[in-house]
Amino acid sequence: MQAVELIRKKRDGQALSTAEIEWLVEQYTHDEIPDYQMSAWLMAVYWRGMDTREISDLTQAMAHSGEELHVGDTISPVVDKHSTGGVGDKVTLAVAPLVAACGVAVAKMTGRGLGHTGGTVDKLESVQGLRTALSRREFMEVLLQHGLVLAGQSNELAPADGKMYGLRDVTGTVESIPLIAASIMSKKLAVGASHLLLDVKVGSGAFMKTVERGRELAQTMVEIGRLAGLHAVAVLTAMDQPLGRAIGNALEMVEAIGILRGEGPADVSELCYHEAAELLTMTGAVSSVAEAEGRIGEAIRSGAAVAKLAEVIAAQGGDARQIEQPHLLPAAPVRCMLLAPYSGYIAGIQSEQMGLASMQLGAGRFKKGEEIDHRTGFILQAKVGDHRHAGDPLVEIHARTEAEAAAVQEPLLACYSWSDAPVMVGPLMYEIVRPL
Amino acid sequence: MQAVELIRKKRDGQALSTAEIEWLVEQYTHDEIPDYQMSAWLMAVYWRGMDTREISDLTQAMAHSGEELHVGDTISPVVDKHSTGGVGDKVTLAVAPLVAACGVAVAKMTGRGLGHTGGTVDKLESVQGLRTALSRREFMEVLLQHGLVLAGQSNELAPADGKMYGLRDVTGTVESIPLIAASIMSKKLAVGASHLLLDVKVGSGAFMKTVERGRELAQTMVEIGRLAGLHAVAVLTAMDQPLGRAIGNALEMVEAIGILRGEGPADVSELCYHEAAELLTMTGAVSSVAEAEGRIGEAIRSGAAVAKLAEVIAAQGGDARQIEQPHLLPAAPVRCMLLAPYSGYIAGIQSEQMGLASMQLGAGRFKKGEEIDHRTGFILQAKVGDHRHAGDPLVEIHARTEAEAAAVQEPLLACYSWSDAPVMVGPLMYEIVRPL
Repeated sequence: MQAVELIRKKRDGQALSTAEIEWLVEQYTHDEIPDYQMSAWLMAVYWRGMDTREISDLTQAMAHSGEELHVGDTISPVVDKHSTGGVGDKVTLAVAPLVAACGVAVAKMTGRGLGHTGGTVDKLESVQGLRTALSRREFMEVLLQHGLVLAGQSNELAPADGKMYGLRDVTGTVESIPLIAASIMSKKLAVGASHLLLDVKVGSGAFMKTVERGRELAQTMVEIGRLAGLHAVAVLTAMDQPLGRAIGNALEMVEAIGILRGEGPADVSELCYHEAAELLTMTGAVSSVAEAEGRIGEAIRSGAAVAKLAEVIAAQGGDARQIEQPHLLPAAPVRCMLLAPYSGYIAGIQSEQMGLASMQLGAGRFKKGEEIDHRTGFILQAKVGDHRHAGDPLVEIHARTEAEAAAVQEPLLACYSWSDAPVMVGPLMYEIVRPL
Repeated sequence: MQAVELIRKKRDGQALSTAEIEWLVEQYTHDEIPDYQMSAWLMAVYWRGMDTREISDLTQAMAHSGEELHVGDTISPVVDKHSTGGVGDKVTLAVAPLVAACGVAVAKMTGRGLGHTGGTVDKLESVQGLRTALSRREFMEVLLQHGLVLAGQSNELAPADGKMYGLRDVTGTVESIPLIAASIMSKKLAVGASHLLLDVKVGSGAFMKTVERGRELAQTMVEIGRLAGLHAVAVLTAMDQPLGRAIGNALEMVEAIGILRGEGPADVSELCYHEAAELLTMTGAVSSVAEAEGRIGEAIRSGAAVAKLAEVIAAQGGDARQIEQPHLLPAAPVRCMLLAPYSGYIAGIQSEQMGLASMQLGAGRFKKGEEIDHRTGFILQAKVGDHRHAGDPLVEIHARTEAEAAAVQEPLLACYSWSDAPVMVGPLMYEIVRPL
């Protein structure tokens, strides 16, 4: 086989065979195919697309390119959860312990934030002493003992994806549904849970700008799962404004703990409970959605949900007191309130711009490997549809310095649009995509 | 500017600005943009195309990426000639001295063969002692003194093209009309003749399989010339069977000398005289095609044409006696005749396959930099439309060894298709594309 032949084949709109895709991924992983051939192939895929069989072959080849955990062989059911990423998205932090507290094991490997969206690992690392870089053995031990593990993404898992993603990022080949689906699902297949919930964010602040594109990605991933024996369900959820009220790592941890205690903001709490119920139902751990909701309510009221998070945090070396008493989490030295400049209804909050504003405070990374400040960020005092009078509190800014807090006010205000008339708020969840 | 932004722009079907194209070519030439970004951009160009202004900008940026000879500033008119390449194509070898013998200077830099098509430099190097690697100064001296120079392509000229071509070759981005046109024309602009004749080969044995594609390439190149102040004319000519009768380096030299003496095969001779007449007419050196034909006839009859070739060969260190007495050119030790296996009309001769067969004898290169044998090749005894009886001579094989001569017979026979009924032969020249 020759790489240039496979590039030409895809360029001319033909489907590659399973053997061709396996060869391409294997050779690329072992540096036998240079980046300049892979990038031309990726651009041809961006142009011509791939059929479902090809995407499934690509995903499985990438999943097989490194270590595979096969967690579902040791414990079953065991669930995994993935979000395509948004601003203020702390859903995984709440859903994972909630489901585990209801008796279904959760094995979660999670990434770091880059650009305007945060990463679950960064949020977790707000907790003093917590280790997220777990060996395979540690990962399995924590999972077996606590029915929950929250680890950072291992570089040993699906290394082909890591290499290809880095190349896509600099060659204009990121925004391809087959490539996005294969990238996400290859890591999920390498972990090897039995059930997977995918939260596909849709809207102005998400990678998928329309429900149609989001649905296409969701259907593709659910089908990849089906072909690989992984029961996956996708929910399409809105990302037109930040989710919940907290943006920033420790601030989002506090909010997640609030959700687990039944004290979180309504929008994000409802979404978390809904996703947890979906996971419990799909595994067969409960026989109805009503039963799932009952169990979830009980886990929250009894304190079992927040206790499960504290338990796994302790198991991974973290200071569990910071979960039980969230005011012990690191706090920014400077807090100040941005006031509403107008009277009116909030018509929109640009999440991407707000994510970028939080990066100015040190809450996110412009480049891979950068240090972040876990303490900084924003607490939104009002969301889309809310009415404010001029001078009412709008955003609480948590910053390292007075100067940074002052500098972020203008970009922050620019995230808001206003209306004199009341504003309709769209649904937070659009639809659910289940296997055919 | 960021390379990934320019990739995305082209990927999304937008035109790049002049400044963006100049930046891209300059940065790539100086290794500031890596191959993996350039290959993604080239695939995006393959997909989305470029408008005429972009192609012209790309061509000029590539032409400016290295040394420029500006031959037209020193001597005017001075003509250049280019063929997109075919099997048995010795037209340049005959046209260049013919035009020079008629009093119009010819500055020709020419490439080496790769794959099934030969290269003019390789054919010239059949002559003992001939140097084609000329310095810029030598090139200009020979041109000024003899009104003709036949040099190898300098690596100093349009280095961006050399680098991009190498990348296109291994990334499936060769067959793009904008990229082909820019590649050819960048080298022509870097030489800087005042007039250019482009021979665009069309047909089964050519890169352009249809007249439509050939016309598109021809129009693109003529327009690039116009925008850069180079008067270019393109002829679309047939490459459905090998041109003339000789295939192989020294064998084609012999045939070219025959053409210059008025003793060449009818098809290729006619094409050479036609192209020479076009060049004389377009420069204004003659006032009519009839006058051009008269001058060409005179140069042939008087021996001036062949004498001009001998003169320039001597000036470049070659043994001019081999031009005056072509039997002194190197000859293969083994000659044998392949006989017609059937009685019938020759319906087709696959030029590409025949080119590949000649490579088996050492007449061409599979890879860049390979040594070739100038002596080997074929003399066709019959062409498409001719009738043969079984046992009649079909191809004279010139080989290094009896074994190689025997081994090539089967692939050679496979190049022929036969018909019981007489076969129509199409025209050798389809049309002429002139500047608008």
